[in-house]
Amino acid sequence: MTRTLRASASACSNIALIKYWGKRDFEWNIPLNDSVSMTLSEAVTTTTVEWDPELKQDEIYLGGERVLDQRGLRVSRYLDRIREQYYRMHARVASVNSFPAGTGIASSASGFAALGLAAIAALGEGLPDEVEMTRWARRGSGSACRSIQAGFVEWVGGDDDASSVSRQLASPDHWDLRDFVVVLSRAPKAISSSEGHRIAARHPFMAARQEHLAARMLAVKGALANRDMATLGALVEHEAMEVQAIMMSGEPSALYLQGETIRLIHALRSWREDEGLPVWFTLDAGPNLHVLCEGSHALAVRRKLEAAAPRAELLENRPGPAATVHDDHLL
Amino acid sequence: MTRTLRASASACSNIALIKYWGKRDFEWNIPLNDSVSMTLSEAVTTTTVEWDPELKQDEIYLGGERVLDQRGLRVSRYLDRIREQYYRMHARVASVNSFPAGTGIASSASGFAALGLAAIAALGEGLPDEVEMTRWARRGSGSACRSIQAGFVEWVGGDDDASSVSRQLASPDHWDLRDFVVVLSRAPKAISSSEGHRIAARHPFMAARQEHLAARMLAVKGALANRDMATLGALVEHEAMEVQAIMMSGEPSALYLQGETIRLIHALRSWREDEGLPVWFTLDAGPNLHVLCEGSHALAVRRKLEAAAPRAELLENRPGPAATVHDDHLL
Repeated sequence: MTRTLRASASACSNIALIKYWGKRDFEWNIPLNDSVSMTLSEAVTTTTVEWDPELKQDEIYLGGERVLDQRGLRVSRYLDRIREQYYRMHARVASVNSFPAGTGIASSASGFAALGLAAIAALGEGLPDEVEMTRWARRGSGSACRSIQAGFVEWVGGDDDASSVSRQLASPDHWDLRDFVVVLSRAPKAISSSEGHRIAARHPFMAARQEHLAARMLAVKGALANRDMATLGALVEHEAMEVQAIMMSGEPSALYLQGETIRLIHALRSWREDEGLPVWFTLDAGPNLHVLCEGSHALAVRRKLEAAAPRAELLENRPGPAATVHDDHLL
Repeated sequence: MTRTLRASASACSNIALIKYWGKRDFEWNIPLNDSVSMTLSEAVTTTTVEWDPELKQDEIYLGGERVLDQRGLRVSRYLDRIREQYYRMHARVASVNSFPAGTGIASSASGFAALGLAAIAALGEGLPDEVEMTRWARRGSGSACRSIQAGFVEWVGGDDDASSVSRQLASPDHWDLRDFVVVLSRAPKAISSSEGHRIAARHPFMAARQEHLAARMLAVKGALANRDMATLGALVEHEAMEVQAIMMSGEPSALYLQGETIRLIHALRSWREDEGLPVWFTLDAGPNLHVLCEGSHALAVRRKLEAAAPRAELLENRPGPAATVHDDHLL
């Protein structure tokens, strides 16, 4: 047998406009609610997987270094799922991110989208359809399913593994929306996203949140359809504050916001409300601000951000492409 | 008629351990829930009221200056309530605070407790009983009812003007608890407390908050009774985060926290969790941190705060005395 069971894939991370926070099923990453995201053009993970019958165990390389810790174990557990369904051999996996580690960009989203795609492509038996690929990505990390499709994506939360899938709402050329990631801190999170999902699931405000989310989802989709920035911005900012509110008032309290985050939020609201600059923000489970505007205001927003946070790194994203298999192998 | 209808009174502000946020009745300041506070020894308002049949209108002096704006109008509207029940003459009112304006200390609490007491005492017909005095204070500003009694106070929210009263839980000598007000900003609030109460009343999380507040109230009273700082601190901090969460995720969003507030919260949690210093915090509708500890740790906490926020003013409070009538007249 000389056929090489190797393939490479790339996938972009994504920023949630309606958030995934709280799971109903931890084995299959079934969320409490539907969510919506924009795929991030400049936050790309590239991964090569090589299945090798000679290997006695998986070999995982992240950013060029072999990892034997929790991160490697998580990749191997994911490969176990693929092995259950396909072959029973081990794999060599190499993965690199286009963006620096610890920036608060969800590397598990781009990471598991690229890993799932490369691992299945490497089997050489053809890829499952796009919907099934979103299932495979989600099994690795919930939000990874939103990194399979390009542009603007909806994750239909569903009830179980079969029904929890993502689908494209609009392609990248639908709307020139920009997402500036303002990297304020690279310190590791005091409370992991995994633990955060558990705290959220038992949070006393979660039931009320679920009750109004369906209306907010519809409104966000309407604003996306109409390219209505003011409506989208207000909805997305409110959503971000609501999820941060749940994080910080849980037991234990997860205060992902840093002083600099709050300082910039006040500054951004003042640019919008006092100076008329059409700019909004969202946040993930971390301190780094995601600043949203239309392409026509991107230069003005960039200048404001550079002046207000001169030491912060800025990563400017457009609606990104779909995850793809390609021949630029890392192994 | 030569009898002078004049009296003076002083009252301390208070810091809520369980918060008053959200009203069920705006005319009578009936809150959505019961609350608990500590009276603040170093945040005192002194007020003199002189009813004068010669006056054609009220004359209001705050901090030595005659005021003709909204603040004066609020005092006059309050005097109207007293006039409805007692006399129909106007008054000269002078009031000073022992603490600087705009520090985020609730001057309306100490202010209306002192004003109510002085205004009724000045009528020369004897004072109503203590419970009725808490009603009079609350009619001016809800939390003012908690400034009538010394030490640790509970405001029984009630359903109407008759049932909404405060009562003492413990006297100041029950427990040497300290409250450091860390004055981080004196900027006026972007959203007034009054508006905040309206936003809170329609907030989707408020019903869930009300459901668990009874249990939290009982736990706080138990911790006060037992002088159990770790239990009280955890409850009070969780309560503060929950109310800030509701404020920032309302429509509109009231983000009272500043960058410096969040920076100090992270620092304080690190003192406690990494260094073992038994210190907790609470917050009001503003950016200034209230730092809580027992007297035995007050010096260590003061030094930490001075090092972490060298430019912030510190106001160290003990459980304060009851509101009193006295003869140090301002008029």
